[in-house]
Amino acid sequence: MLRKLLFLLAGILIYYSRYSSVVVAAVGFAIIGYIVTDNLIPRVGPSFIKIGLFGKDLSKVGKPVLPECIGAVSATVYLFIMFFYIPFIFYRYLVTVTSGGGQRDVAVDQWPIDGPSYSVFPHSRLSEYLSSTLCLESTILLGIADDLFDIRWRHKFFLPAVAAIPLLAVYYIDFGVTSVLVPGFMQNWLSKCMFFLHEKGIVETPINITSIDLKGLYYMYMASMAIFCPNSINILAGINGLEVGQSIVLGLLALINDTLYMTLGSETTKNSHRFSIVLIIPFLGVSMALFKWNKWPAKVFVGDTYCYFAGMVFAVVGIQGHFAKTMLLLFVPQIINFIYSVPQLFNLVFCPRHRLPKFNESDGLLYPSRANLKENPPKTFFIPILKVLGFCHLIDLEIDDKTGQIISCSNMTIINLMLVWFGPMREDKLCNLILSCQFMIGIAALVLRHCVGSIIFQHDNLWTIK
Amino acid sequence: MLRKLLFLLAGILIYYSRYSSVVVAAVGFAIIGYIVTDNLIPRVGPSFIKIGLFGKDLSKVGKPVLPECIGAVSATVYLFIMFFYIPFIFYRYLVTVTSGGGQRDVAVDQWPIDGPSYSVFPHSRLSEYLSSTLCLESTILLGIADDLFDIRWRHKFFLPAVAAIPLLAVYYIDFGVTSVLVPGFMQNWLSKCMFFLHEKGIVETPINITSIDLKGLYYMYMASMAIFCPNSINILAGINGLEVGQSIVLGLLALINDTLYMTLGSETTKNSHRFSIVLIIPFLGVSMALFKWNKWPAKVFVGDTYCYFAGMVFAVVGIQGHFAKTMLLLFVPQIINFIYSVPQLFNLVFCPRHRLPKFNESDGLLYPSRANLKENPPKTFFIPILKVLGFCHLIDLEIDDKTGQIISCSNMTIINLMLVWFGPMREDKLCNLILSCQFMIGIAALVLRHCVGSIIFQHDNLWTIK
Repeated sequence: MLRKLLFLLAGILIYYSRYSSVVVAAVGFAIIGYIVTDNLIPRVGPSFIKIGLFGKDLSKVGKPVLPECIGAVSATVYLFIMFFYIPFIFYRYLVTVTSGGGQRDVAVDQWPIDGPSYSVFPHSRLSEYLSSTLCLESTILLGIADDLFDIRWRHKFFLPAVAAIPLLAVYYIDFGVTSVLVPGFMQNWLSKCMFFLHEKGIVETPINITSIDLKGLYYMYMASMAIFCPNSINILAGINGLEVGQSIVLGLLALINDTLYMTLGSETTKNSHRFSIVLIIPFLGVSMALFKWNKWPAKVFVGDTYCYFAGMVFAVVGIQGHFAKTMLLLFVPQIINFIYSVPQLFNLVFCPRHRLPKFNESDGLLYPSRANLKENPPKTFFIPILKVLGFCHLIDLEIDDKTGQIISCSNMTIINLMLVWFGPMREDKLCNLILSCQFMIGIAALVLRHCVGSIIFQHDNLWTIK
Repeated sequence: MLRKLLFLLAGILIYYSRYSSVVVAAVGFAIIGYIVTDNLIPRVGPSFIKIGLFGKDLSKVGKPVLPECIGAVSATVYLFIMFFYIPFIFYRYLVTVTSGGGQRDVAVDQWPIDGPSYSVFPHSRLSEYLSSTLCLESTILLGIADDLFDIRWRHKFFLPAVAAIPLLAVYYIDFGVTSVLVPGFMQNWLSKCMFFLHEKGIVETPINITSIDLKGLYYMYMASMAIFCPNSINILAGINGLEVGQSIVLGLLALINDTLYMTLGSETTKNSHRFSIVLIIPFLGVSMALFKWNKWPAKVFVGDTYCYFAGMVFAVVGIQGHFAKTMLLLFVPQIINFIYSVPQLFNLVFCPRHRLPKFNESDGLLYPSRANLKENPPKTFFIPILKVLGFCHLIDLEIDDKTGQIISCSNMTIINLMLVWFGPMREDKLCNLILSCQFMIGIAALVLRHCVGSIIFQHDNLWTIK
């Protein structure tokens, strides 16, 4: 009953979006996405197990077998929402005469009847939208390949860059801007350099450099954005609901940033952020349905497909909306997690095969897992650093009182660090704690970005310092 | 060595395509597609078997186990060719000023330096191209889902229509022409009707109807095209090399038709057929590599993914190029096969679980497989029809001399019919025979289309009857 009412509501929202804004249609499609995903997951679960896509939940009594890779369902539903979306968010061309053979002769932008001009996107944005969809679909395809074939780590690290090719190719022929602004203080510095070179006779006329054309480097930068976002979500994982939860928090933070621009920003930036909103709201819809099934106690696992897909949504939004730097700021918790993991990832400190927290069946709580450093001592130069970290409570060290040798340390992930700081706790509490921290850090990053950013660049897209 | 030379050749072709035509780039990418696919197939085969994607080749001694669903490799390679293609076949926008926030302010079509104007597609065709790619990628995704989960027949029949949604959605907002020409003789007839209605006072002014706007029906028509092509390739299957072989023949026939238009046709139709050429040539490249591995004696099976994908390539080309009717003509052999199968598909005649030809281990030849009609007699009204078919040598009947009852008949597929007509033969000979017939019928259909078509519509896109 509730489901039918929700469907009706979604239908009404989508229908009336033409009189208000594409954002209304986005909310409608998000509701549909939620209902469809929520319905599909329990139905397809057994089929996934049947073809061998399953895993054991190690942090539960009895280690139950759960279907793996269920995030592919959310991702596919999202994709079809993107398709059905198209007629609701773009102007229509009205073709009045054709000379046959598929030639478009007279093309007139038909504005929506009675609709205000800001309600839909201009037709020229269509190729941008389609290339984003292509990029996401390729990500899903490669994610599924990874879940099926268990591609080697060093290969799968670069997979998202491959999926980003349609995005970059269309960017190249459709937009092609590869310049970045130079921060104010560097502009002065560069001017002085230029003037110096001019005096020496190396440069004929000193020019004022306000932006630098990165050319090929800009595409490298976009590709690395596409590599970074999916992998960083994939790394902060391992307890029920964390992958989806952090994606939802990221989505909410991005929405807050967009809302800021939509209310305070200039007209020119509004379109980019409307585009971002339109992609993120339905993403939240399908993700919440997945979260319902993946949160503690999990009924399904999300799989690499979802991590890649979710990361790519943010990469695409950042790249297409030209606020990739702001987007990176929202990933600060993931970046911290990566940096904190580096000593183990690069084998400065022994890295056991699994670094998940240890589940204690008797009290049902998670305890920090530990790396045995007695048999595998860390690199000599790193021992003092470990001790400093231990002194700052950034790691839990077990030290032999007699020899002063480090016997073991807690594994270096944010998840274990939380358990070190706040003591053993149940899986759902741990997940909520991490998500809350992530949200607080994200909000702080946004505040900093709009205050400090405006000082460095001497103006912010939101306001200008006079 | 040869491979390196081919790669070099492909590179040169692609590089110099900017001075000649996109068709040259297409050939270059086709060569790359062939080499990459040919290299990948033997490498990924074992991984496919490992995750359970394999099948037994029943028409060989010892029934060897072969990897299944390898067509997904060709399809994926094709997809990435489509991505890398983009910068080589479209004009670039040159953006000189941006106001920040991802706004395109001044957009100038930059023509290729020193290149003739016909060398690349206009930028406005980009969304068409991207929606085609999206449609193909969705087809692959759904095809893989089918190969993995063995979706039920009645569900999978409609899968291609789902994959065609991006195509239809973009057609709706980007082109939106839903009118079809009315044939000449019907125009006269309709005029008379109109005049009659006018005299009766039902219609105020008699108008001359030259085209009819099908509106929603046109989208139904496109969707059914998307359902028809993939499924018809999927039905004519079962012996080594036949699925890929028939797709290659279809591609060649479509290319012949395109070449006809490119040399004789008017300027307006040339663009559509250039688009078709650009999609089909690389398709031939990846398909030929697959054919090399799938032809008798097969080392791999192609799987449903390839059949869907190949069919969708032709559906997309037909729909986007607005020559869906001509495209359907090329599918005449598949249509004949379907109609011939109808009595068994709808259970008028008993249909055994497998209708593949019977393999005789002693002489290595294929014999027509038979349906036992003694235990499962056909519907009474159909018995005379069966006898007529038998009389015309369109089926092989075994009749009880005493009672006149039909004991068994050869299974009703083109493959079995060929064996009935030409006697038992080896699998590769049978495949070649069917492909040759298909090619001859296709050529005949093209000749008929341009002769008879011009009479019915009183003009043909190729020439006009004066």
